Amino acid sequence: MDNFNFYSPTEFVFGKGRENECGRYVKKFGGTKVLIHFGGKSAEKSGLLGRVRASLDAENIPYCELGGVQPNPRDTLVYKGIELARAEKVDFILAVGGGSVIDSAKAIAVGVPYDGDFWDFYSGTQIKEALPVATVLTIAAAGSEGSPNSVITKEDGLIKRGTGSDLIRPRFSVMDPELTQTLPAYQTACGATDIMAHVFERYFTNTPEVEITDRLCEAVLCTMVKEVPRVIADPNNYEARANIMWAGTVAHNNIVGVGREQDWNSHGIEHELSALYDCAHGAGLAVIMPAWMEFVYKHNVMRFCQMATRVFGCAMDFENPEATAVAGIKAFRTFLHNIGMPINFAELGAKEEDIPLLVKKFGVGTGRTGGFVKLSAEDVTSIYKLAAKAAL
Amino acid sequence: MDNFNFYSPTEFVFGKGRENECGRYVKKFGGTKVLIHFGGKSAEKSGLLGRVRASLDAENIPYCELGGVQPNPRDTLVYKGIELARAEKVDFILAVGGGSVIDSAKAIAVGVPYDGDFWDFYSGTQIKEALPVATVLTIAAAGSEGSPNSVITKEDGLIKRGTGSDLIRPRFSVMDPELTQTLPAYQTACGATDIMAHVFERYFTNTPEVEITDRLCEAVLCTMVKEVPRVIADPNNYEARANIMWAGTVAHNNIVGVGREQDWNSHGIEHELSALYDCAHGAGLAVIMPAWMEFVYKHNVMRFCQMATRVFGCAMDFENPEATAVAGIKAFRTFLHNIGMPINFAELGAKEEDIPLLVKKFGVGTGRTGGFVKLSAEDVTSIYKLAAKAAL
Repeated sequence: MDNFNFYSPTEFVFGKGRENECGRYVKKFGGTKVLIHFGGKSAEKSGLLGRVRASLDAENIPYCELGGVQPNPRDTLVYKGIELARAEKVDFILAVGGGSVIDSAKAIAVGVPYDGDFWDFYSGTQIKEALPVATVLTIAAAGSEGSPNSVITKEDGLIKRGTGSDLIRPRFSVMDPELTQTLPAYQTACGATDIMAHVFERYFTNTPEVEITDRLCEAVLCTMVKEVPRVIADPNNYEARANIMWAGTVAHNNIVGVGREQDWNSHGIEHELSALYDCAHGAGLAVIMPAWMEFVYKHNVMRFCQMATRVFGCAMDFENPEATAVAGIKAFRTFLHNIGMPINFAELGAKEEDIPLLVKKFGVGTGRTGGFVKLSAEDVTSIYKLAAKAAL
Repeated sequence: MDNFNFYSPTEFVFGKGRENECGRYVKKFGGTKVLIHFGGKSAEKSGLLGRVRASLDAENIPYCELGGVQPNPRDTLVYKGIELARAEKVDFILAVGGGSVIDSAKAIAVGVPYDGDFWDFYSGTQIKEALPVATVLTIAAAGSEGSPNSVITKEDGLIKRGTGSDLIRPRFSVMDPELTQTLPAYQTACGATDIMAHVFERYFTNTPEVEITDRLCEAVLCTMVKEVPRVIADPNNYEARANIMWAGTVAHNNIVGVGREQDWNSHGIEHELSALYDCAHGAGLAVIMPAWMEFVYKHNVMRFCQMATRVFGCAMDFENPEATAVAGIKAFRTFLHNIGMPINFAELGAKEEDIPLLVKKFGVGTGRTGGFVKLSAEDVTSIYKLAAKAAL
């Protein structure tokens, strides 16, 4: 096990109706003037924004608002948010929405106290200061409600880049599973895929003897394998929604990733798809992640056998472990197909002829080809090709 | 799944040699005058205290010291610590040791700013203020390095009582698995038993559909089932020590317990044993916990089948699930015996004729008989009797 720090100071406020308490928590964490940041009209129509406002009103906490965050959140809205927050002398950012809204809120939080361009922090500059951020989560997916990370897309050139710092970990996150019950099945499945991918990026490691994090990874994955089909079959299944929502946080606050080298190549390879086609990140991962597995499994067949048997309940073929590894990958892809995810380029709306462009854009980033298997540009090309033509 | 809050703001600083950084972390968390609190001479002899002092010296942080904490830490030393901390104007308590030292440090931390008797907080008074506490952990067991709890024994009458508050959660905890390599096998096994008990107290619940916390519980338990025998066989196995040490924290910072009713009767029933006989808490749990399981398993046979199959690898007997439940309990007791734990009163050094006294003292506490199965005084008597005579 490698040396590590684990620090997850976010207070998670979980359960039915908890959004009515968010004013109280803003007060607890020192907010006196809030920017409510959100996405589209559904937060207004559902009454959620009204409940959030009422809860701030009850504590006499003034607020201003900025909506309009879209999936794959853009730098352009971040600039607007920074300007508004400065003009209104905001000292607390409350994100009401999913991962895109939270990531956009985190970008505003680092931008407000910074003299330069906030994009610097998405290009390698270290974050030194940020306004406090909190969230009212409406989608189980990105794990941004408990993570120190944010990913933003630069409109000019559709460049998608991330940053991270404990300073942008949410102070608190309200998580009411009922808020996710109105999500369409497709978005629910995209979120579930993202959650599972967050675990797999940590699960495939070259660090030996990390049984505790292995087992914690498998705990989240087994939960998803059980609960996601139940939610797809019945969107109003509160218990399944609750299990998935909490699994999404556990998957990404790094409790399942400490003490080990992590991979994250599938996320990097996927980011180019969602940046180019503006598809859902989870859908892109459903296409990329099994293809990545097919490309790398020979690097450690036994680790894939462990996944196959412990997560997908495959029988171990002791005479032919490789067959078990392949069966596990196939089980994962079949699972994704069964919950309504695309599994190849055609189903995603991506084009095979764009592969050279995708590989070129992927190459722009740095430090993305280490991890479980070090990938060359040719390897990344092969993974995109496997993903393009994948079938059950 | 029940509504819950999850809040674990402790920064865990894990790995080889990390105790050399504790001065830096005291500074990070605002300490300017430290009370180093520790147990016996081993911390001095091993050089650990010297490294902690050097690390504080390097940051120019002054300190005073109070050693002498014994297992089942006493109120008498807490009073001394409060007096010393006040006299020396200490603003930060650094516990160097295991659960007893940490619990004693937490008691001092609540006592210093309080006008009355600190024991009030162990008799139901709510904690409103406390000095910051941090730890350098030397035993994987109590989970106190990441918990809001403290248990102290009142010398007069040997009354063992607990308290809890987020205010006494450690600000940081240094966890170097190498520090645990010198522990005798018996103490190592006692710690391991305590860790497993912390999970079982959360695992046996009447709350339905908490798959994610069930799976997380099983992740910790499976890790212990694999790693503990390796450490008993080879005390210097760093990797196994590391897995157990981190499992001990995960077992008790409540990540495996949220969203569900918990039990904690075995802990209450055991506390009377360690208070009366001054035996190790873990050893007492090894005697009590399987007996408690035998007494209650019919309340939910399927839950015990889940434990038997998922944790101890028992085959499910679909024609006779009760046989599987019983096999799981037997597997747990055999596991405890194999790692050197006592499994009955004789092996523990307890006396069957004391049972009426134990039951009477247990009855003094309040709110301890709810949870998985509500226990009457007669039920507690039956559990002590099962524990007294237990055999493989």
